[in-house]
Amino acid sequence: MADNTQILLMERPRGPLTEKHFASRSAAIPAPADGQVLVRSVLLSLDAANRAWMQGATYRAALEAGQLMSGYGLGEVVESRSPKFARGDLVLGELGWQEWCAADAKTFARASAHRPLSHQLSVLGVTGKTAYHGLLHVPGIAAGETLLVSAAGGAVGSLVGQIGKIKGARVVGVAGGSEKCAWVVRELGFDACIDHKADDLAAQLKRAAPEGIDVYFDNTGGAILQAALFAMKPRGRISCCGAVSQYDVAAPKSPAGVPGLLVVKRLRMEGFLVMDFADKDAEAERDLSAWAASGKLRVVEDVIDGLENAPRALIGLLAGENRGKRMIRVAAEPR
Amino acid sequence: MADNTQILLMERPRGPLTEKHFASRSAAIPAPADGQVLVRSVLLSLDAANRAWMQGATYRAALEAGQLMSGYGLGEVVESRSPKFARGDLVLGELGWQEWCAADAKTFARASAHRPLSHQLSVLGVTGKTAYHGLLHVPGIAAGETLLVSAAGGAVGSLVGQIGKIKGARVVGVAGGSEKCAWVVRELGFDACIDHKADDLAAQLKRAAPEGIDVYFDNTGGAILQAALFAMKPRGRISCCGAVSQYDVAAPKSPAGVPGLLVVKRLRMEGFLVMDFADKDAEAERDLSAWAASGKLRVVEDVIDGLENAPRALIGLLAGENRGKRMIRVAAEPR
Repeated sequence: MADNTQILLMERPRGPLTEKHFASRSAAIPAPADGQVLVRSVLLSLDAANRAWMQGATYRAALEAGQLMSGYGLGEVVESRSPKFARGDLVLGELGWQEWCAADAKTFARASAHRPLSHQLSVLGVTGKTAYHGLLHVPGIAAGETLLVSAAGGAVGSLVGQIGKIKGARVVGVAGGSEKCAWVVRELGFDACIDHKADDLAAQLKRAAPEGIDVYFDNTGGAILQAALFAMKPRGRISCCGAVSQYDVAAPKSPAGVPGLLVVKRLRMEGFLVMDFADKDAEAERDLSAWAASGKLRVVEDVIDGLENAPRALIGLLAGENRGKRMIRVAAEPR
Repeated sequence: MADNTQILLMERPRGPLTEKHFASRSAAIPAPADGQVLVRSVLLSLDAANRAWMQGATYRAALEAGQLMSGYGLGEVVESRSPKFARGDLVLGELGWQEWCAADAKTFARASAHRPLSHQLSVLGVTGKTAYHGLLHVPGIAAGETLLVSAAGGAVGSLVGQIGKIKGARVVGVAGGSEKCAWVVRELGFDACIDHKADDLAAQLKRAAPEGIDVYFDNTGGAILQAALFAMKPRGRISCCGAVSQYDVAAPKSPAGVPGLLVVKRLRMEGFLVMDFADKDAEAERDLSAWAASGKLRVVEDVIDGLENAPRALIGLLAGENRGKRMIRVAAEPR
């Protein structure tokens, strides 16, 4: 335990991300400076956004070649030189893909007492809040409406569809592969799920939602967004959460029909970032934890052991192999 | 006057519209059936939407080869077989590109007493209401915000920019050619106008609005929409009114950055159709006529004499040659 294993991004990918874009190294465990804390990583969140950061500046600076791979996670304070935290506190924040992180105490938030800890990165974390705010506070959803959700088996999509069901909507998912689609319906309770890997997306959508879509929660962009635009009802609303189909390609493609279909159907497309809804986080946490506790909301997690597996796990996530919230267990959970 | 000259759309264009797509013919003046009125065309509205109708079904059925060219206009009832209108009444509605129209009385609305009559197709007509509702009731505009308007010298754009100024916004137009841009600033009072025919659109936009765009009123789609997306401020709003740059081309092109830029900047893009705001038309008419009467709003009209000139005038409109609202005078104005 005298070493700090770190995973660096060695090169910004121009096409699909591969393990060759990463390298592992062993560094010294850092000593916290005044105002800093030394945090031992416990769980690292893996997100499609990790790949988007490699494309260029987004809501944060772009990742650069040679730097420690960025990542959000949950860790334990091992040494504190700040009054904000004490040894043994659990914190959430930017840890990076490494075992030990020394950073300003103000960059961390205190974790809650909720167990399992993994929930603080899934249903009660950024993932759950993204699903909650991005559905309920962007397009909204009313009972009886038809909700389409892409990346339906993923971290955010699996929650969005279930929240839609709780609110009384008819929920159609989009996922990759017939087996995963069947799982989305069977295990998550979606009304239907269509397979974007089949070549008849528009026809499947027509069958699953013959009267069209009221609200589309878009995690993918690309061809699925395009099919959704054509299937929207007049005055439909689209919540733009992410564009995972476009992050890992050399040449992103915009969907046809923009802005023509928006005009003709009077559609609203709106992007959001979860941090813009911080004033409503307490409401989200209250609802999400109540729904999870009562069993109305099934929390699906996909935890992979070992920091060394993070590159492969992220690559797999971009290919859609995860079910629910994927994260890396870097170290055993503290008591 | 025994003949009814009609202009037919002979072929749906697959690329740019030309005069060869039209043909003129002389038909008999129709006799109105029971419930119908016979209307003599006075003014025909020319709109980019005329071209969009040739592309396929929109909010109305597509125009088909061989049919009378569709067009909205103002005419005089010459014979009535309906209690709704009497001989001499002025009406607004779908007349088609012809001198005489017999149609169900219920398809027409009564024109107002306002003079000049041309205002009922421009500032007080669909054009003015499109500008008013599409700016004030879709994205809204606040004093001090920066408003970008494409097709700034056109029928709708010329009004949108002036309404923005009335509401206290800083207004930047986009128009084709330096001479037209200068006219937009000088005659319409825009704060700046940039030339989309020059090859440095993004750089011009940066100079004209260094802090970015709060609201973009999009009449064009295409490359201008793309440049605007990149120039929007976080939480910017885009009103999607039309896509004139995409109507007269063989292969429409969507702008890059959809949905990525919407997510990262939390943008809202929203399409609208003017008829959805009919409940607010009285408010629009009241404000627009007051602004026009007081000289706050300059009404620019581009009236071309002679039905036979309609094809060339529409083709020219699609190329951006008009200033303000283009229409065809089919017959002299009744007393």
